Amino acid sequence: MNFASDNAAGVAPEILAAIARANDGSALAYGNDAATRRVEQRLAELFEHEVAAFLVPTGTAANALALAQLTPPWGAVLCHAESHIATDECGAPEFFGGGIKLIGLPGEACKLAPETIAGALAGRSWGGPHHVSPAVLSLSQATEAGTIYRPDDVGALAEIARGRELAVHMDGARLANALSRLGVSPAQATWRAGVDVLSFGASKGGALAAEAIVFFDPARAAGMQERRKRGGHLVSKHRFLAVQIEAYLADGLWLRLAGHANDMADRLGNGLAAIGHAPVWPVEANEVFVALPPRTCERLKAQGASFYPWATASLPTGIALGDRTLLRLVTSFATAAREIERFVELVEAA
Amino acid sequence: MNFASDNAAGVAPEILAAIARANDGSALAYGNDAATRRVEQRLAELFEHEVAAFLVPTGTAANALALAQLTPPWGAVLCHAESHIATDECGAPEFFGGGIKLIGLPGEACKLAPETIAGALAGRSWGGPHHVSPAVLSLSQATEAGTIYRPDDVGALAEIARGRELAVHMDGARLANALSRLGVSPAQATWRAGVDVLSFGASKGGALAAEAIVFFDPARAAGMQERRKRGGHLVSKHRFLAVQIEAYLADGLWLRLAGHANDMADRLGNGLAAIGHAPVWPVEANEVFVALPPRTCERLKAQGASFYPWATASLPTGIALGDRTLLRLVTSFATAAREIERFVELVEAA
Amino acid sequence: MNFASDNAAGVAPEILAAIARANDGSALAYGNDAATRRVEQRLAELFEHEVAAFLVPTGTAANALALAQLTPPWGAVLCHAESHIATDECGAPEFFGGGIKLIGLPGEACKLAPETIAGALAGRSWGGPHHVSPAVLSLSQATEAGTIYRPDDVGALAEIARGRELAVHMDGARLANALSRLGVSPAQATWRAGVDVLSFGASKGGALAAEAIVFFDPARAAGMQERRKRGGHLVSKHRFLAVQIEAYLADGLWLRLAGHANDMADRLGNGLAAIGHAPVWPVEANEVFVALPPRTCERLKAQGASFYPWATASLPTGIALGDRTLLRLVTSFATAAREIERFVELVEAA
Amino acid sequence: MNFASDNAAGVAPEILAAIARANDGSALAYGNDAATRRVEQRLAELFEHEVAAFLVPTGTAANALALAQLTPPWGAVLCHAESHIATDECGAPEFFGGGIKLIGLPGEACKLAPETIAGALAGRSWGGPHHVSPAVLSLSQATEAGTIYRPDDVGALAEIARGRELAVHMDGARLANALSRLGVSPAQATWRAGVDVLSFGASKGGALAAEAIVFFDPARAAGMQERRKRGGHLVSKHRFLAVQIEAYLADGLWLRLAGHANDMADRLGNGLAAIGHAPVWPVEANEVFVALPPRTCERLKAQGASFYPWATASLPTGIALGDRTLLRLVTSFATAAREIERFVELVEAA
Repeated sequence: MNFASDNAAGVAPEILAAIARANDGSALAYGNDAATRRVEQRLAELFEHEVAAFLVPTGTAANALALAQLTPPWGAVLCHAESHIATDECGAPEFFGGGIKLIGLPGEACKLAPETIAGALAGRSWGGPHHVSPAVLSLSQATEAGTIYRPDDVGALAEIARGRELAVHMDGARLANALSRLGVSPAQATWRAGVDVLSFGASKGGALAAEAIVFFDPARAAGMQERRKRGGHLVSKHRFLAVQIEAYLADGLWLRLAGHANDMADRLGNGLAAIGHAPVWPVEANEVFVALPPRTCERLKAQGASFYPWATASLPTGIALGDRTLLRLVTSFATAAREIERFVELVEAA
Repeated sequence: MNFASDNAAGVAPEILAAIARANDGSALAYGNDAATRRVEQRLAELFEHEVAAFLVPTGTAANALALAQLTPPWGAVLCHAESHIATDECGAPEFFGGGIKLIGLPGEACKLAPETIAGALAGRSWGGPHHVSPAVLSLSQATEAGTIYRPDDVGALAEIARGRELAVHMDGARLANALSRLGVSPAQATWRAGVDVLSFGASKGGALAAEAIVFFDPARAAGMQERRKRGGHLVSKHRFLAVQIEAYLADGLWLRLAGHANDMADRLGNGLAAIGHAPVWPVEANEVFVALPPRTCERLKAQGASFYPWATASLPTGIALGDRTLLRLVTSFATAAREIERFVELVEAA
Repeated sequence: MNFASDNAAGVAPEILAAIARANDGSALAYGNDAATRRVEQRLAELFEHEVAAFLVPTGTAANALALAQLTPPWGAVLCHAESHIATDECGAPEFFGGGIKLIGLPGEACKLAPETIAGALAGRSWGGPHHVSPAVLSLSQATEAGTIYRPDDVGALAEIARGRELAVHMDGARLANALSRLGVSPAQATWRAGVDVLSFGASKGGALAAEAIVFFDPARAAGMQERRKRGGHLVSKHRFLAVQIEAYLADGLWLRLAGHANDMADRLGNGLAAIGHAPVWPVEANEVFVALPPRTCERLKAQGASFYPWATASLPTGIALGDRTLLRLVTSFATAAREIERFVELVEAA
Repeated sequence: MNFASDNAAGVAPEILAAIARANDGSALAYGNDAATRRVEQRLAELFEHEVAAFLVPTGTAANALALAQLTPPWGAVLCHAESHIATDECGAPEFFGGGIKLIGLPGEACKLAPETIAGALAGRSWGGPHHVSPAVLSLSQATEAGTIYRPDDVGALAEIARGRELAVHMDGARLANALSRLGVSPAQATWRAGVDVLSFGASKGGALAAEAIVFFDPARAAGMQERRKRGGHLVSKHRFLAVQIEAYLADGLWLRLAGHANDMADRLGNGLAAIGHAPVWPVEANEVFVALPPRTCERLKAQGASFYPWATASLPTGIALGDRTLLRLVTSFATAAREIERFVELVEAA
């Protein structure tokens, strides 16, 4: 019963097989290989758009390099106060950006609302030169609450951003989960809705260690090769990154894996709701947040369930935790239905 | 006939098998797993010394994070002018170090001599506060010329460094090749000779993407967890880094792989010498540098050999290239004897 | 009627005279002069404590260098959300700190309350290594609302900070105004209350361009000489910085100048209150914040008054601006009583 | 007999008087004042070209901000190995530039030769993305050896730089001395010869603390306001910087002051040559470098002369110091002829 993180899962067998297959013979290092060219082409097809793509081994690298590229050092990134870039990357965006500022904004279920962005842009002094200048709007898809922006949501936010010449970045560490749920195309969820640069995650979805930074305007990527290299993120045996993404995208694997994780989350959410423990936020991706009595949490742990408690200021109005502990339960491509059933049974018994 | 780089080789089968084996079940992310604990223990045994070890996916990350840890932003790193950190990492040490300065020094065969270090420390103003302060001596083992420091060489350099309170860093991207040649223990080649922090390479030696930053004084590693994370170098499915190093070290695999690469380099160097093209530097690790007429180079390429031309200011006194082009030929664990033979034949025929 | 900023005032005559006097003969540059030694000694006497002091030409330099010294790059500075370091220095602390994070906290009248600090330290994940680590508590004295921390206030906040090993920094750009009001000694207001490092302002108080970074524990200042130099903040003809501070402190000039500014602020606040426009925050230093109808503001400007509108989220509970515009009115050592009277008359007439 | 530095001189009386005059009444802070507008206009007239100018209090700030503006973090600055930016600013350019690299090149009398620049650009790998990219050529005028580039020299160097799309920066801390000697216009010595950005020094020439960063293409200065502010280099009472530059330029004061310093240097150089101690480099600005026996140096110090010994690798071919110590003797606007005479007499007597 591992619900601690989708990072706790291993590697999807198809991706592991692709790594093994790629180990045949030599290939020029640092991305000068055929697999890298193939995956760049594949990403362009997938997104139905010209792209410049840069593979890196971690999601933090993808986010930090993308943000550093999109803002001058005196720029600000508007994001949700509980977003991964703001709270879980130990200041990587600030470091790579030369001291940029992340402006954490509130929003129920970790989603930003248009009026919040508009208010933040209107409500304080910017630039001039005493103040930092707003440069990027960054959205997490899916959010840290396991919720999802619809293309229209993204479009409304991006429109406000563009009106002030902000670039729009999407942290798509769990983009597959969002797309699987929404049933829209990668293009619809990203550049057609106004996204300029995407951190396209694969590690949480089933890869070993591979993410892609995708620029929908290649001109905007000038210098990214150097930026990645001096960040220490240009992997020498680069073909092994490329084939991970390639296998992840082949035959819709990524959406099948994400779909399974989402199904497991649904089942978990529904199971808990049925016994009186409805999730605090809608279950839209592969995360379920539920408030349980501390004693129940202790028992679950004792019986082998792994998960983390969660602190948030983004609960829906009217929901109070009281004495309960909020838990984050993450499902993955590897989650088995019996883990779900066992967990729900244990909660019920507790 | 791939002699472009040891990075062009794939993954040693034993290491690939270890990755596959590690894919069984879930494991806590970010290094909180059993394999990570095992490899930390293994490194301590290997070096016969307490260590703090940090795994990262690239050699540039290992070097840049190590150097940033060892020097304040106003510090200087003394190194060979043609060292990897000085010329091939696109300024990564300067970036991670907050604007440190690398002082490139000359030395035949890319090796630093004690009098060079002593002269550099004596010959200019340091500190005070107008000048940067010397903080680190960094040595490459093996060097970029494929040559090797003996433990006594390292000891003599380290003694000078310590006399001025410089830390000693070793870029051991090819440490295995050096050790295999020298027949000394890892301890003798590192901390016993005065090395404080080692970038322990595995990628060039046969791993997919795994390096370890090894601190022989764990107290000196305070903050390294945060430094690595905010550099984007904490890989989420960390067990897959750990098992690469573990398999690399198991049963002496790393030294066998390096020994094979060295043997191939010997064979190549001897073969070329026998036909009148003696390498310009002693062949001590897995690199052979030979000067050939440009037309020969063209032919070799046309016949499928891959390699890079090499620019250097570190040739032995008395050796002039004239019209010839200096080539770098790198062997690896995967180099086959027939590639060597074919290459030598082609040179002879040209 | 200049109420735009205390920076709009010129230089106190005594300080200008000291500059002229210092222009006699030559003196070693970069702080190796007698005046610099005298002012270092003077600061130690003033604060009744051993100090290490570093003179710089701007308050932003003082704050940014001090904060960078007190926190590792992965550290966080807890401060009021509307503090100068957080909103008016264009990211200087983040730049000098190598990408540190400023955590802006709420507080009525721009003052931080102990429970706010305690809550911030308890209410989110810190360190570990995913999260930044709290490293500094920074207080503005006087605050951006013109309010003042009593020594006991500082003491209570500092105690919480020390309990978590945070350093305590005070942005004392208007320390003189606070001290003049409180009638306590410099020691009582700073190190005795728990302040570790002080940005000691003189420019706003009457100097041309001079601030001092004062470390009450000189050991904590290791490397500050280099940090200042590489920040471009070591002024070559340093004696002219030193004599500014020296003259500022001589014979209590600094407190007299601040006392006058405070008196003018009192008079302005009282005058406005008497005609129905009570300041929104207590007038404790040299700033008065008053909400006036937009039309009144226009008229005041037309009649030669200069001031800035002010945006804040720190109004006392129960105070709403409605249609009114909040103005910041700053007095200085150079403010004349007739400017106050004229301004109040104009408001009354409007 | 102060020959330690032109920074050891005080402030020219005309400049001090201008500061006192500017202290009349209030003025908006941070450069929003009339004096700042006037000096910007004055600089444009002086250089016969549209400019964007940014005043800062130190030369290190001017250089570091200019270089950071002209190169991406992965850029390299080509400069003389003994230039001020490379050796005397404690890494300020590297810090402000986010980890840029300064490539120190050799050159007799601290002057760079066209073939040196051409060779540096041709002789190593650049960009690609493993290597840093050459971005700026920086020239010191006058040089650290007190020598001067003619407009044709600058033109030849700039032409090579532009052929590789490098920007040309001039560190003009002693530009006045060069212009006074050359008798060419500011335009001829700068933008007409290919200079893009100039650090225009005034402090060494007689100001209290004022330098200007002058962009001859204002479009290239985008973001400089923010860069200066977050560097802590936007002086609040900015009018006092502006009037220093204004007075420095009024009625040719700057060239008169520099001319006097140069005359004193000539007299010193000639006097020493006449007694058998010819300067090692041509005396072209306000610095004289002479090699004297250590015992003579001791005596001079004992008799009240101040100066610094100098280490260099830029002596003319054929000149050896032997047992002698190389001294740097700097004259200034304040140097008196009797100081020169006394110094020469003492050398002769020794």
